[in-house]
Order: sequence, then C-alpha cells, then structure tokens
Amino acid sequence: MTKLTIDARGVFVIAVTPFKPDGAIDMESCDRMVDFYLETGATGLTVLGMMGEAPKLTVEESRDVVARILDRVNGRVPVVVGVSAPGFAQIDTLTRMVMDQGAAGVMVAPPGSLRTDDQIYAYYTAIGDLLGDVPFVLQDFPLATGVQISAGVIARIMNDVPTCVCLKHEDWPGLEKITALRKEGVLNQRVSILCGNGGMFLTEEMERGADGAMTGFAYPEMMVDVVRHFNAGEMERGRDLFDAYLPLARFEQQPGMGLAIRKYVLARRGVIAHDALRKPGGALSAASRAEVDRLIARQEKRLKELN
Amino acid sequence: MTKLTIDARGVFVIAVTPFKPDGAIDMESCDRMVDFYLETGATGLTVLGMMGEAPKLTVEESRDVVARILDRVNGRVPVVVGVSAPGFAQIDTLTRMVMDQGAAGVMVAPPGSLRTDDQIYAYYTAIGDLLGDVPFVLQDFPLATGVQISAGVIARIMNDVPTCVCLKHEDWPGLEKITALRKEGVLNQRVSILCGNGGMFLTEEMERGADGAMTGFAYPEMMVDVVRHFNAGEMERGRDLFDAYLPLARFEQQPGMGLAIRKYVLARRGVIAHDALRKPGGALSAASRAEVDRLIARQEKRLKELN
Amino acid sequence: MTKLTIDARGVFVIAVTPFKPDGAIDMESCDRMVDFYLETGATGLTVLGMMGEAPKLTVEESRDVVARILDRVNGRVPVVVGVSAPGFAQIDTLTRMVMDQGAAGVMVAPPGSLRTDDQIYAYYTAIGDLLGDVPFVLQDFPLATGVQISAGVIARIMNDVPTCVCLKHEDWPGLEKITALRKEGVLNQRVSILCGNGGMFLTEEMERGADGAMTGFAYPEMMVDVVRHFNAGEMERGRDLFDAYLPLARFEQQPGMGLAIRKYVLARRGVIAHDALRKPGGALSAASRAEVDRLIARQEKRLKELN
Amino acid sequence: MTKLTIDARGVFVIAVTPFKPDGAIDMESCDRMVDFYLETGATGLTVLGMMGEAPKLTVEESRDVVARILDRVNGRVPVVVGVSAPGFAQIDTLTRMVMDQGAAGVMVAPPGSLRTDDQIYAYYTAIGDLLGDVPFVLQDFPLATGVQISAGVIARIMNDVPTCVCLKHEDWPGLEKITALRKEGVLNQRVSILCGNGGMFLTEEMERGADGAMTGFAYPEMMVDVVRHFNAGEMERGRDLFDAYLPLARFEQQPGMGLAIRKYVLARRGVIAHDALRKPGGALSAASRAEVDRLIARQEKRLKELN
Repeated sequence: MTKLTIDARGVFVIAVTPFKPDGAIDMESCDRMVDFYLETGATGLTVLGMMGEAPKLTVEESRDVVARILDRVNGRVPVVVGVSAPGFAQIDTLTRMVMDQGAAGVMVAPPGSLRTDDQIYAYYTAIGDLLGDVPFVLQDFPLATGVQISAGVIARIMNDVPTCVCLKHEDWPGLEKITALRKEGVLNQRVSILCGNGGMFLTEEMERGADGAMTGFAYPEMMVDVVRHFNAGEMERGRDLFDAYLPLARFEQQPGMGLAIRKYVLARRGVIAHDALRKPGGALSAASRAEVDRLIARQEKRLKELN
Repeated sequence: MTKLTIDARGVFVIAVTPFKPDGAIDMESCDRMVDFYLETGATGLTVLGMMGEAPKLTVEESRDVVARILDRVNGRVPVVVGVSAPGFAQIDTLTRMVMDQGAAGVMVAPPGSLRTDDQIYAYYTAIGDLLGDVPFVLQDFPLATGVQISAGVIARIMNDVPTCVCLKHEDWPGLEKITALRKEGVLNQRVSILCGNGGMFLTEEMERGADGAMTGFAYPEMMVDVVRHFNAGEMERGRDLFDAYLPLARFEQQPGMGLAIRKYVLARRGVIAHDALRKPGGALSAASRAEVDRLIARQEKRLKELN
Repeated sequence: MTKLTIDARGVFVIAVTPFKPDGAIDMESCDRMVDFYLETGATGLTVLGMMGEAPKLTVEESRDVVARILDRVNGRVPVVVGVSAPGFAQIDTLTRMVMDQGAAGVMVAPPGSLRTDDQIYAYYTAIGDLLGDVPFVLQDFPLATGVQISAGVIARIMNDVPTCVCLKHEDWPGLEKITALRKEGVLNQRVSILCGNGGMFLTEEMERGADGAMTGFAYPEMMVDVVRHFNAGEMERGRDLFDAYLPLARFEQQPGMGLAIRKYVLARRGVIAHDALRKPGGALSAASRAEVDRLIARQEKRLKELN
Repeated sequence: MTKLTIDARGVFVIAVTPFKPDGAIDMESCDRMVDFYLETGATGLTVLGMMGEAPKLTVEESRDVVARILDRVNGRVPVVVGVSAPGFAQIDTLTRMVMDQGAAGVMVAPPGSLRTDDQIYAYYTAIGDLLGDVPFVLQDFPLATGVQISAGVIARIMNDVPTCVCLKHEDWPGLEKITALRKEGVLNQRVSILCGNGGMFLTEEMERGADGAMTGFAYPEMMVDVVRHFNAGEMERGRDLFDAYLPLARFEQQPGMGLAIRKYVLARRGVIAHDALRKPGGALSAASRAEVDRLIARQEKRLKELN
C-alpha cells in the first residue's frame, strides 16, 4: 500500500461510522459510503477521526471498521486512520494494527493537558519516535482539544520529524497560520496542509496556500469542486459554488450536534441506511430535521441557478 | 427615559467603541455610528458589550462613551449597557451611573467561575437583588464565558426575577434552547429573546420564536430586513437576503479577530473614521483585508441580483 | 465474588500499575503490591484508576493486570475497577470483562464535556441502565475532569440509580459536600462515601461523615490508622498520626508529578521493583527524589516521637 | 519612595481587604492589619492581589485602600499593588494612580486568553512598554489564570524586560521551575523569586533558590521564620516550624473558600474586626469554623512542644 506523503492534496473525506438503530456497526453502509465518497472525487479517506465517533468503538470494532473500509477502498486512494489516545501503548497498538491492514498513515491530535510550546513539541517528537517510519498527520483542532499550537511550533515539529507529512488544519481563526507556514524558509519541505472546520473557510484557505480539505461535510462534491476550480484558476466559480452550500455547511458546523446533522443528510442522500448515533449521543429534533430539509431544498434551487 | 421591557424586539445593535489610531476614544465617530445604526432600522443599541472593547476602557471612559451615545440617541431607542464585572461593587457603580444618564437597562454575563445550576441561579437572583428595579438582560454566551446555562435554569431565573426581562441568546448550538423556552408553561411571561452569534443563525432563530437580534454584524440592515420579512410572513425572502450576507457574516464571526473585521467594514462604509483596536488587540493583515474586500464585492453583486 | 455495596468502608487503596524500565507491565510487582496493601489493612482495592495510568494500557493489558490482581487478592477484599471511557461500548466491554473476572464493581468518572445539572444526571442514569446490576462508584473529581457536580445532583443520581452505591469524593474543597449529603433526608439510603485527594483532608472528612478513603497515598497505613482511630472515637490520636504524614502527603499531592512521587516511595519501600512511569510521563528529578528522602526521614523521626 | 528591585526578599504578605459586615471597607482594620504584618517581620506588602478581593472594589475604593495602607506603612517597607485588568487603559490608569501615591511597583497576571509562548511573551513585553520605568512583578498562577508559562518563557521575558524585577511564583507543581530559572546562564541577572501557594511548599522553594514568599497565610510569622532559618543555615529548624503550621496552611489553601478561612483566622487573632467577604462571596460554615479552631489549638500545642 502507498504511504501518505507530503504530496497529499485534494479532499480527504472524514468518514462517519455508520450504525444501525440498535447501535451495531452497519457494515453494508460502510461499503456504500466508501463508494459514494470516491465517486464524489475524494482523493483520500480519513477514518476513526473525532467526528467518526471513534472513541465510542471498542478496539475490536475499530479494527473491523478499518478492515471493511480498506477492503472496499482496495487501494484506490490512501486511507488515514485517527489513533489519538491518552497513552502511547494504545496509539502504538492501534497504529500497528491499521498499518498492517493497509492504512496509508495515521493522525494524532494532542492530549488536552499540553500547554506550553515545549510540551507540545516534546509530545510530537516522542510520537515521531514511537511511530517509526509510519507517516502521520498532525491534527491542530484547538476548539476540541483545548491545545493552541502556534505556527512556529508546527514548523519546529514538521522540520524535525520528517514523518509528520501533513497538517490537518482546523484552528479557528486559522487563515494567518496557513500564510505563516507557507512563508519562504519556514518549513524545510512543502508539507501537505489539508483543512477542516467542515469546509467553512475552504475558499480562503485555498487562496492562502492549503492543498485541499480533510473534513466531513455531507456534500463532499462541494469541496472537490472548490479545490478543482481553484487549482484551475477559476476562483470566482469556486466561490459561487461554495456560497451555494454555505447555509448548510454553517448549520452542520454547530458543535456537538454537527455529526447528527451530517448523518441525517447522508441518510437522506441514501449514502448510509440510518442516521443513528451511538450512545452517548443525542438524536436530531424534528425542528432541526425540518431546518435541514429546507436548507437542502434551497441549496438545490441555488445550484440549479448556477448552472 | 423608557425602561427595557419584555417587549423588546427587532435589532439591538451591539455598538463598537470607535478609537483613534493613538488609542483615544473617537467621539465624532460615536455620533456618526449612532446615526448609522438608527438609519438602518435598529430598534435599540447595546453599548459596552464584550465586543465593544468595554474591558479596555477606564471607568471614566465608559461613562463618557455612554453619555455621548445616549446624548446622540436622544431617547429615540432604548440603550442597554453591559455592566458585567467580577464584583458587585463594580456592577452597582456602573449601573447607577448609566441609569442616571438615561440607559434603558443593563446586561450581565455570568462570571467564568460558575458551574452548577444552583451557582448560576444564585448569582442571578443576587444580581436581581443588587439591581433593584433596573431591568436587565441575561447574556448567555458559553463560548466566551465558559458557563453553560440550561433552558431550565434560564426559566427558573426569569420566572423568579421579573426584572430579568430579556435573554441575549448566544449559545452555540442554541436553537433547541429557544424552542424549550417558548414551550407553553415554561416561562411565566413571554420575555424578550434577542439572538447573538453575529446573526449567523438568525433565520432559524426567528423560526424558533426569537424576537430579533442583539449582535453587531457590520451590515445591521441584513438583520433588520430578516426580522421584518419574518414578521411579515415572507420567510423565503428573508432567507434569500440572509444567504447573500452569510459569506461575510461567517468571516466576521471568527473568534478573536471578528471585531477587527467588523471595524474594518464599518470604517470602509464610512461609519467610523478608523478601524483601530485598542491594545492589547491585533490589526487585520493585508490578506484578511483583501478577503473582506472581495466578500463585500461579491455580496453587493448578489444583492443586486436579488432585486 | 461479593459485590460492592453501600456498606463499603475503610480504605480502598488506589493501586498503581507497576512497569519495568522498558515499559512492560511488571506482574511480579503487582503481586507484591497486592500483598503489601492488604497487609497494611486495606479493606478494598481500586485498579485502573486515573492515577493507575489506566489510559496508557491497551485493552489486553488492562485485562491482564486486573486478572493478575484479582487472582492475588483471591476474594479477600472487594476490587473496584475504573472503566471511564468516552463511549458506552468501551465502558460496557471493559465492565463485562472485569466483572466476569471477579471484580466487585466499577468506577465511572464523568466525561469532560458535561456541564449542566441535567447533562450530568442524564449521563449517570444512562450509565446505570448500561451497567444493569453491576454496582458502581461515582467519581467526583473536578480538578481532573473539569466537571462540577453539586451535592443535589449527586443525591438525585444516587436516589434514582440504586446501583450507584458509593461516592469517590474528590472535590476540592469538598467538606461541605459531605455534610450536605449526610443531612437527614437527602439520600434515600446511607451510601458509602470514600474520599480521595491523596488523603489530604481525611481527618476532617471522617468528622463530616465519610466512611473512609479511596486514594493511593504511598503510606496507606496512615489512612487505615486514621479511619480506625476515628471509628474508635480516638480523634486526637488520629490527627496526631495524620499530621506526621502530612508533609509527605502534601508533596505527593502535586498534580501531574504526584504519581512519580508515589511510585518512587513505593519502590523505596520495596513494594514495587521500579518507579518507572510509562510514556508519556516524566521521571522524578534528583532534587525531587532528595526532597522525598528527606520528608520520609523526618516522618519516621516524628512517628517515633509519637510512640 | 524606594522602588521594587531584583533584591526583593523575605516575606511580602498579600494583604486582605477588610470589610465591615455591611460590605463597606473597614479602614480601621486596614491600619491594624498593616501594623500586624510589619510586626510579624514582613519585608513588604502586596495589596489588591487576587486574594485581596481586588476585583470587587470600585476604582475609587481601590485608590482609597491603597492610600490608607501606604499612609500607614509610611515608607517602612515597599508596597506592591496588583493592577491586572483586561485592558491596558485600566492597567495604565491604576498604575499611574498607585505609583503617584507611593507604591514601590505593580503586579501583573496574564489574561486567561493567552496560550502560546509567543502570545505570553508579546503580552509581557507590551506591558513593559506600557509601564515604562515602573518595576513590576510577573504573577505566574496557572491554577487561577489558566495560563501555563514555561521557565524558558519567563526567562525570555525577564531578560528582555529589565523592569520585570520579580517573579511571584505560584505554579503547582512549580519546584522544577525555580531550579530551571536559577540555573547558571538562564537569567541575565538574579531576579527576585517570591513564592505563593499559601506557603505550602516554602521549605522546598527556599532550598531550590527562592528569595522568600509573597502570599497571605494568616500566620505570616511562620513564613518569616522559615525564611530566616533557611538564610541562617538552620534548615531543620525551619522545617520543624513549617510542619507545625502545615495542617492549617493546607486547610487555608482550599480554593475558593481559602480567603474566608484566612479572614476568619485574622479576625480571631484580632487583626481585623470582621471576617466579612464582599458579595459575591460565601461565609464560612459553623463546621468549617470549628475545624479551624481545632487546627489552631493543635498548632499552638505543637509550637509549644517545639520551644
């Protein structure tokens, strides 16, 4: 299997974990979801991310989900697996398991206890030692982790740990961080920067030097198209598309309930069979569902006007 | 001066505090800003809010700014003043001062140390006792304060403290909270609910039962129009307008740098003379300014298409 | 195996997890540690607690450690196992596993995302449903979890979930909480309250109505003796003993480095073979080790004077 | 008036702010308190610290309290005034006011929004610019501020801002930080390090290179004696004294309620007339008062045995 490299670009969709109403993993939906993501133009997948309800799976379930997805992907695109955990033993076990199964690399978010620059740097250099030659993604997501990583610290880590090949950029606000990292001489090599935040700033992020997105907005085709248009120099066309999807993207980006919205949309689109979240995790209210329905109707109307 | 009541509705714009490049308060811009807000259709103003750089003012400066604004408003709309402070003596002093000057009421956010329901309830009942017959707004803004207030606790407070006449609703996500509070029998009287979050959810908030907005988006006319259209039953028209402004609203809503963006837009529009923030507070980068310029150009184009 | 009940009292020592210098689990030290704890008079053991480096173990390691300890305990005292995890699937799997192995009950701390009273109550009633007839300990440790649980919420949970038989009380300050819970009519039944915080407030906690301690101070005999003296009405004798150990207890209670100190002392006492912490986790400096040595020497001198 | 310098050592007692039962400032108690602190051997005073209920005072009250205390001190020892505030205008106003009144310097804690090393460094260099030639104390108190400052960042600040002459060291754990700062070549000049945390680690702090204490334990004579004995090379004598006071120091160090305990003790000792806290702030329960009484009785007995 090809490993993840600094050349990762395009859209790595963060996959949800489909469940049945009784809480069991819905493997059939996993297959359909993989097909859907690849058909929309995803250049990679990321599984067991924070939004994938990874912490709610047992180790055996995590292994089975990754195996099923890797099997279905069958080498067509690289698959990154989230392995963040409080202890190195857990990270190591999960990493060995998924790399043996054919993953292209892993993703590591910082534990919430890290505060100072030196603590963060020490953590990631130790992660680099632990993972050996396994390439990994540094997940920078302060709103969820509580850890603020400056551009300078990211550069120190990426320059000293060459297996840290990709930044999942999810700071908010984070545009200046992209600009700082893309400044001449800051990074020894041009690592991959893929952006999160549900795609809410993708047009500006591309302008600032991002290579694409790594997030799970339920209409990945928007992100695929925006990246494509920007790469083709058709920025205004990219922005028109982006704007059409923004009302829904904004709604999906609500913290806590965002995953329920995403699954509801994916189920509506026939990608997964059920919009069930595993416990603990709340269902979407009827009012919220109606709001999503209306946003999708308006989005479709707007997209028609654009064509 | 008329006092704030449970009938507050429409758009209470959160006013910025205009500074000169040297950090002095720009009183001329205060006047022009007041005129601008009222011309756009604001039904009220809120000054010395968190976004108004209130904590950067000395007590004397706070008094002078409030006096200037009240003088310019001259009773045309009610003016609410943010008085949040760590101690009751400070809250009391500032409240007496601004009520004497002619404010319609005050706004109080919870101190970050509050955690349990009982602590929050006890704080606001004590605030009610302290303020006497001065009407006040409960500011529910967990992203900034770190304090989560459930709908049930808000109801307990508002039912037991009749001078708490208005909720500045700024939870995120917060739509279910509006629905919960508007449910039959939850509140003894139909208090005012005005929403924040830069207007990012105003269409859904109106649908759920909000009475309007209390936030500072640099195009208050969007909020005024959305509220007007919803009140007139023209929801789709309201949503069309909302969508046209959303790309910029999203950009302005970035935490930390949002105020710099807002001031930059207000200065561009000629409302205030300078986009200066007082120290400590950073300036907008050239790249960010260019992004705002582009967003405004696209917004104007879109608005033309709508008419 | 006997299950944990509301009659739990005395000292449930929080066991450390002994490692070899290379990071492997030191099973021989596990055995010696169990013998040591029981010889000092422990009435129970708690394993895989936060201080036991539980999050650094893989699931297989967790199972092996629990099995080894249960085997060595051999039914002499009840063993509680910490099963806190982000998702119910993980909690369920670990609980089934350790209850099958012969554990007496499990312990559950709240996830850090909980804030309002209702969220906390809902979480623990769902945990009660999930665990079925497995008795469990509610771990109230705000300094580590960030979750503040009021006495009223604890009472609601314990009254509605009869399998929640014990409170591991670790709030700081927390004395008033014990008093509130022991007030006539607050709790339907007299549940067990065992206190944490390294034993730093054990004398006052006993006075307020605690049934003993559940914490891991490296001299469990202090806690055993204090509880014994208080139960025998010899409070001043208990306080004299407590004071003799306090300088070291205070030193061990430093957050973050406390576990390293505890393991250093246990290794010095010959209880475990190595004071190694698993990565990520720092070693004790030479200066800190010298400070502990001096504190122990002074403690021994003081204890001699008391006899 | 003499300014604060890098030679500050001994015990700078953090003064409480005495109130009457109705919440008014008790100026007579201010005088008696100053006399008491100086009689116990304080080498300096710090007023309007976090524990002095400073945020509960109005600006006028702050001025009056500082004036009264400076008047009573009458130049006998340097007086440091806490001026931490969200904005530079407030810090500047308060600093000018108290320096004009005769303060020796000011103390500044970091605002809770600071996270990265660069943010912290930038804040304190800006503070240095703002304050001009006014010497100031950097207050490092992560438990209260949420801001973690590494030894390296403190060194960068103190080396680049020569008016930052003293570190109020209140990290927990923080002993390694003192050692790091006292290492040859880290600091350009030997700045003053005075320790907080209620004196709970004073013996180890002195051993590591601290110059004394800056905290408010209600028996300042303990801190004065420990510092004196350590400076005289009589470490064991210092530790004996420390241990005698430790049970009460531990009790007073409970977060939130610590100030109520401190005021109760000071009132018991006749230093201040009332143990009243200003609102919002809770009174000590009868049970807590009884615990303090018992701790003092045992402390007096122990001190007698030592003599």
